[in-house]
Amino acid sequence: MAKDYDSFIQTCTIRVRYSETDKMGIVYNANYLVWFEIARTEYCRNLGKTYREWEAQGYFLPVTESYCKYNAPANYDDMLSLYCRAPAEHLKPHSIRFEYMVMVGSELLTEGWTKHAFISAEGKIIRKNNQFQLWLIGDARNNVAPK
Amino acid sequence: MAKDYDSFIQTCTIRVRYSETDKMGIVYNANYLVWFEIARTEYCRNLGKTYREWEAQGYFLPVTESYCKYNAPANYDDMLSLYCRAPAEHLKPHSIRFEYMVMVGSELLTEGWTKHAFISAEGKIIRKNNQFQLWLIGDARNNVAPK
Amino acid sequence: MAKDYDSFIQTCTIRVRYSETDKMGIVYNANYLVWFEIARTEYCRNLGKTYREWEAQGYFLPVTESYCKYNAPANYDDMLSLYCRAPAEHLKPHSIRFEYMVMVGSELLTEGWTKHAFISAEGKIIRKNNQFQLWLIGDARNNVAPK
Amino acid sequence: MAKDYDSFIQTCTIRVRYSETDKMGIVYNANYLVWFEIARTEYCRNLGKTYREWEAQGYFLPVTESYCKYNAPANYDDMLSLYCRAPAEHLKPHSIRFEYMVMVGSELLTEGWTKHAFISAEGKIIRKNNQFQLWLIGDARNNVAPK
Repeated sequence: MAKDYDSFIQTCTIRVRYSETDKMGIVYNANYLVWFEIARTEYCRNLGKTYREWEAQGYFLPVTESYCKYNAPANYDDMLSLYCRAPAEHLKPHSIRFEYMVMVGSELLTEGWTKHAFISAEGKIIRKNNQFQLWLIGDARNNVAPK
Repeated sequence: MAKDYDSFIQTCTIRVRYSETDKMGIVYNANYLVWFEIARTEYCRNLGKTYREWEAQGYFLPVTESYCKYNAPANYDDMLSLYCRAPAEHLKPHSIRFEYMVMVGSELLTEGWTKHAFISAEGKIIRKNNQFQLWLIGDARNNVAPK
Repeated sequence: MAKDYDSFIQTCTIRVRYSETDKMGIVYNANYLVWFEIARTEYCRNLGKTYREWEAQGYFLPVTESYCKYNAPANYDDMLSLYCRAPAEHLKPHSIRFEYMVMVGSELLTEGWTKHAFISAEGKIIRKNNQFQLWLIGDARNNVAPK
Repeated sequence: MAKDYDSFIQTCTIRVRYSETDKMGIVYNANYLVWFEIARTEYCRNLGKTYREWEAQGYFLPVTESYCKYNAPANYDDMLSLYCRAPAEHLKPHSIRFEYMVMVGSELLTEGWTKHAFISAEGKIIRKNNQFQLWLIGDARNNVAPK
């Protein structure tokens, strides 16, 4: 992953739950993908339209690929900062890649990315007039209907 | 819960996953409700028609109440036996109660129950002609279409 | 559960995660027990000493019983308020009961309780000089060392 | 990933749980990492010594990297076959990579890998006399004490 951290936005903070730890005493590895989901949810909210609203309009973004690099473990009750970005270079006609960082203070615990398809409510790939994608690129940001 | 264990059927065995443990070194408490779900799923399969098929026919059983008593902890990699029953006395016109036991060998780790409503695909309570309920009571068991 | 809601404190708010929903479109039932855990964690933090600190001092509170009543479903992206209290009447020498409410705005979605044992790091029931219990009762609140 | 499927072994079958689905109606993406964990657990059991036993001997394998490619969704109640292998080319002095396939019948739903460090009970990287690694390579397989 590119290390130009400046292009990330801090989306939210979350506290590590007891349920997210395992018998090794640290956070179980699959939970980072859940946190990535939270980060992209909050990324959309920050941009002005929630993922929930996009789904209500018929846009679904199932994950098609995921990658995660675990540098240091998160611990119970840690306060984490979740960062996200959606680089334009990875915005393809039918897919998008979100990138993430999970930090405690100034320490980078985990970084990773997920790739997604744009799917309609009927389960078809959205090939034309993809408003969600245009919005993510930024072309459509000024045209988003006020909530 | 009544202790007439004879009326329970052993639905399946499952192995405790690493992801199900927490930093206390034992299984996290919420997972028992997941195991209860597996037990009632397999209970239906044993009776000859899967819960998946019932959902496809428009019957949904959201949980309206749950109770769990944790006698002894389950540990990573334990092989558990899941028991279930649906006592006739708790079959009400619009609700049902499943009861459960989680065992390791002959040791009872956990027992509990969940109460459910019968809901249609439209989210309405099913008030008439509840085939799922009749089937659970047993009146309809002989009429289940072969799979 | 007693309905004197006044004795509850609002511990925190959380947003429903996509991972917490199931194919019925609403939150999966076991997640409420996870939220109860968050509520009691924040309850302790509100009182001035975190559960993490208590564990570091050798106090562990495994769940021995749980009950949950689901009145209305929580949905993806809902902002929930988690309430908790630890009624004195349920504080026994070796056990405690926390009570919970999960609300969206002024709507009570779920209520429930969990009962816990006080266990040492060696896995023994703490029978004497239970500082955690005294602190919860309130006798010891004034003596908690500043963090 | 290399496509020489012959080198994989089928470790076990599991059924998709209701709890593993999300509101999109299919399995939530993070659960595949849980299934990968099950696959490597059963891989070790197949080799003759369980991961639980290795942990009891002081070997811990936290995940340091994970990758997953989701080709097709898994659905509730599907019976999945979990495949695993640990290619010799990825066995490094202090790390190992497990590779996975998740299949329904002859359809490949998901493939991926996880990289792990070898850590002692004290949290240190195991640098010398790594019995777990030797055993995985196969040099030590004949010397494993009978269970």
